[in-house]
Formats: sequence, C-alpha cells, structure tokens
Amino acid sequence: MKRDPFEPFIDLEERPDIVAEFNIEPGWRFALARRALFAELDALSHLNHTTFLRYFEDARIGYMMHHGLTAPAPDSTGCVLARLDADYKQPVFFDERLVVTVRAAKIGNTSILLEYGAWSAEKGLTCQSTSLLVMVVTVTGEKERISDAMRASIADFEGREF
Amino acid sequence: MKRDPFEPFIDLEERPDIVAEFNIEPGWRFALARRALFAELDALSHLNHTTFLRYFEDARIGYMMHHGLTAPAPDSTGCVLARLDADYKQPVFFDERLVVTVRAAKIGNTSILLEYGAWSAEKGLTCQSTSLLVMVVTVTGEKERISDAMRASIADFEGREF
Amino acid sequence: MKRDPFEPFIDLEERPDIVAEFNIEPGWRFALARRALFAELDALSHLNHTTFLRYFEDARIGYMMHHGLTAPAPDSTGCVLARLDADYKQPVFFDERLVVTVRAAKIGNTSILLEYGAWSAEKGLTCQSTSLLVMVVTVTGEKERISDAMRASIADFEGREF
Amino acid sequence: MKRDPFEPFIDLEERPDIVAEFNIEPGWRFALARRALFAELDALSHLNHTTFLRYFEDARIGYMMHHGLTAPAPDSTGCVLARLDADYKQPVFFDERLVVTVRAAKIGNTSILLEYGAWSAEKGLTCQSTSLLVMVVTVTGEKERISDAMRASIADFEGREF
Repeated sequence: MKRDPFEPFIDLEERPDIVAEFNIEPGWRFALARRALFAELDALSHLNHTTFLRYFEDARIGYMMHHGLTAPAPDSTGCVLARLDADYKQPVFFDERLVVTVRAAKIGNTSILLEYGAWSAEKGLTCQSTSLLVMVVTVTGEKERISDAMRASIADFEGREF
Repeated sequence: MKRDPFEPFIDLEERPDIVAEFNIEPGWRFALARRALFAELDALSHLNHTTFLRYFEDARIGYMMHHGLTAPAPDSTGCVLARLDADYKQPVFFDERLVVTVRAAKIGNTSILLEYGAWSAEKGLTCQSTSLLVMVVTVTGEKERISDAMRASIADFEGREF
Repeated sequence: MKRDPFEPFIDLEERPDIVAEFNIEPGWRFALARRALFAELDALSHLNHTTFLRYFEDARIGYMMHHGLTAPAPDSTGCVLARLDADYKQPVFFDERLVVTVRAAKIGNTSILLEYGAWSAEKGLTCQSTSLLVMVVTVTGEKERISDAMRASIADFEGREF
Repeated sequence: MKRDPFEPFIDLEERPDIVAEFNIEPGWRFALARRALFAELDALSHLNHTTFLRYFEDARIGYMMHHGLTAPAPDSTGCVLARLDADYKQPVFFDERLVVTVRAAKIGNTSILLEYGAWSAEKGLTCQSTSLLVMVVTVTGEKERISDAMRASIADFEGREF
C-alpha cells in the first residue's frame, strides 16, 4: 500500500502506533497530522496562538464533512462558530509534529459542541479547546436543524448516543 | 493638527464622537481602529474567526506596551497567553470598520486577565473575548512578578484599584 | 479637524511632510500607512516576505476601488492577479512604520500593470514590486475591457496619459 | 509499510504514480503535497495569491534543510529572499490537491536561484515562480559563501553540475 500524502486525516482506530507515540487519551478517533510551518510561527519563534485555532478549524471542517456537511461556500448550508475557548499548555516550535484531534461532545437541535486537542509526542497535550457550532443557511444566517443522518453518522463513528 | 495615519491606538476619553458612533459601553478606554482587509476574510467572505483574535492580540500588545512591557522578542521578558475564550455575535464583511477595545479585568501576582470587544457602528458588539496572560522570561519560560510600576500604570489609566 | 483613524489611505499631494520624512520619490501619490504587526513577523522576527505582498494587495484594492472598481466579492466583476515580481531590499521589524505606495504604470485593453513601494523613514525603500492585473467577470473568469471611466479616473489622478 | 502522515515531502523519483497523475514535467524531483485549506482562501473563495508563495516557502525550507541548511532561527545562518516572481495561471479552490515542486536552477557564490511549480491533477500548472536566495548570517546580515557540501548535495540530488 502506497501512502497518500494528500490525506491529512487519520482514523486513530487504525493507528495504535500513533496513539501510543503521542500518548493520546482514549476517546479520540478523528485526527489530523501537522508539522509547525515557518510562517505559522510569530516573532517569539513559537506557533502563534491563532495557528492552533486554524488547525482546529481544519480538523472541524474535515470532521463535519466526514459526517455529511457540504464544503464551505458562500451559498451552501454551513456551520458558524458561536463560541470557543482554548487552553494553551506548551509552546510549539518550528517543524514540531502535532496530532490534532476532534470529537463531538454534545449535539443539540441546531448546534454541536466540539472538543479538540493538539498532542505532541514529546510534550503531551499542548493545547485543548472547545467550540460551539451553529448550523445555518449561510446566505440568510437562519438556523437549521441538524439532520438525522448527520447525528446518526457521528453517533456511529464515536460509538455513543447523542 | 495633522492626523497621524500610523497611530492605530485611540484614547476613547479623547474621542466621545467615536464612543457615540459605535455605541461603546462605558468602562472601555484603550482602543484600536480597524477595517476588515481582503485577505482577512475566508471562503465564506466574512472575517475569519481567528482574525478577531489577531485584532485582540494587536490591542493586547499595544495596551501592555503602553503600560511598560518591552516589545515582544525572543530574548525579552514577555507575556504568554495561557487561556482565552471568545463569543462571536455578528459576522463582519469586507472593509467594515471596527473599534477594538481592551482593558484589564484583574491583575494577579504573575498574571493579568484582559477583556476585549470588537464594536461595529452598524451591528453593535460583533465579538467579545477574555484572555489570561502570564508574565514570563521568554527564554526560560519562568514566571515573573508583575511590576509595581505596571500595576500602578494600569490602575491610573483605568481609574480603579487592582 | 479630527483625524479619522479608520482611513488608511493617504493622498501624498496633501502630505508633503510624510513625503519628506519617508524620502518618497516623486511620481507616487496613492499611499497606505502601516506598522508591522506581531503576527505578521515570522520565526526570524522580521516581516514575512508574503506580508509585503499583503500590504500591496491592500493598496491595490484601495487604489482600484478609488477608481471605480466594486468591492471584491465572488459574484462581482473584479481583477485577478496574473503575475507579480518583488525585490526585497531591507528587513522590517516589529512596529516599524511603512508607507506603501501604488500607481498604474500601464493600462491595456483588459489589463493594468501596477507598481508598488514600501518606504521606511529610516531605511528607504524596503521592498518594491510590480503586478499585472486582468479584469474579469469573477464567476466566469471571462476577460473584461477596462472601462473608459476607470481609465480616465486613473489618468486624471496620476496626471498623465494612459 | 505504514504511511507517515507527518511527512509532507515526496521524492518524485519514488512516486511515478504522482508524476503521472499530476502531469509533472521531467526535471522536478523534490515535492510537497498540499490541499487548499479553508482559511487559505480569500473573499473570492479561491486560494489567496500569497498562499502559493507560502507553499513555495515551505518547499524551499524543506529543500534547503534537506541539503544541509539548519532550521530557521534568529541566531542561525540562514537564507533570505532577495527577489521573487510568480505567474498565476489557474485559480485553486477549497480542498483541491496540489503538488508543489522546487529545484535549484543556478548556484552562485553566496546565492541560489530556485524554481517552483504548483501542479493540479485537473488543471495542470496553476502557478510557477522563481526566487533568489542569499545566504547570510541572520544576526548580522553578512553574506556567507555557499558551502561545498551544500553545492555537492544539490548537484547529487538533481543529477547535474552547478
């Protein structure tokens, strides 16, 4: 099997080696592999705090599209960020490898609460975050019910009820 | 008096016209003027959620330097972000004007809790945020006491005890 | 006269003080004031090379809108970048002030060649660039003739024929 | 063999399948795999022109480090960008896959001319670029001779004299 260098997402169920190397706690399955890029650092030579949130954004879009959301576009149904918090635990430097994990914590009628982690093999959890997404018709901003199909897909993937 | 186009910071005590136009609540004094730039938007044509946090970072650095912090550099004493949260209330589009406000909410031994707002004349408060900063020697990561001079400068500026 | 902190553009004809302080050569009129922001620096603590190009992009959009282009949007007529070159002459560090200048060098049927400079009061010209824009219907990518009104507006502003 | 999701670089000599799928011309060997991320798009929903240059920067740093350059840091010997040009041929949209290629075109005493391409399987070459790097002691800005070891490593990798 040739590796696909364009595929950034990892199913951690298939990669116990990565789970072990990065000491990722049980309960995380959908992941994204990253290395800190030169221009993502800031004047202190460590990853800018907004870069972690960009990684979580990429993980979030991958996760939501994996469960049926269409690609973000001005005229599609989408999800908007209503709220986020983040804890910064360890600085990250040039070229360091991170496993970025995402999972649903709670699913409401029109909103989803997601949790994130950025794991380093050497430093443990460098940043953790939660964010609340609201499903909307992008053009109008009107809220949309989360479809049964999406709810079922997430429940099936995470192996729990929502 | 010629205006200085390089000076992004505003003392709202001197600009009741801006306070009135943007409906900024009492209790905010240090501000930054911004217009949403083309490349700060994302594929949904609104300001990316991380751009607000960049604005708050710029406001934070301006505020802290106003109160005696040296410019950020790999070998200076600085402040690192330990935690943040943000509430996104309204989308912002190309070229919209925002007043970004920052103030200290609480000052501990080695940490400062800051609060932020991004105010639109047309939409009110578009985003609000808080963040916890910890003063550290940048090279070693060791915590540093907040100096009496900085505490006094902030207390004097905000007109209250800390 | 109160200064407008939201207005980043300067007509250098009205600001001989800025022309003198920044040693800007004759022939430049439309300008943008900038200070290097923390997150625009990279791991070498100087302005990332792409940040200059972002400044030129902002100057370009301001210049083109000043001459009648509508705001960039997925469904408007717009101009796309076909080609650019840039010469980097001096590094720029945190909080340094730059005057970013833009002017039309040549106007064709469907394209405009623009020139840019980023001037420091202390270091002279830190970066210069040219770029070729092509007017297109954004949705279809089809080329559009540059309107007589835009051509006349630029000629009038720059004080020369095109 | 398990794929390594953290390894963005590809030796095209080992991947004729990718060369064929992306119609990459002979003469390119060092490559980087990318997918266009949400926040790399701009208000026109296509990859911002500076994002291509960020990709080329990442490819450049990977290439130079592969040939012995130390990781970029404020106190290391490094290479600074003196000049670049870029031709934009095709817009790139959300989640599109690109192979980013880099190679040395010419090596002088203290400078290297690099060439880049961003290849799409569907659209061919979307952007091509060249840039001139100068080796310097980062702290002082003094030029440095390119080491014989680096010149030999590049010559060996590219299979030609420099």
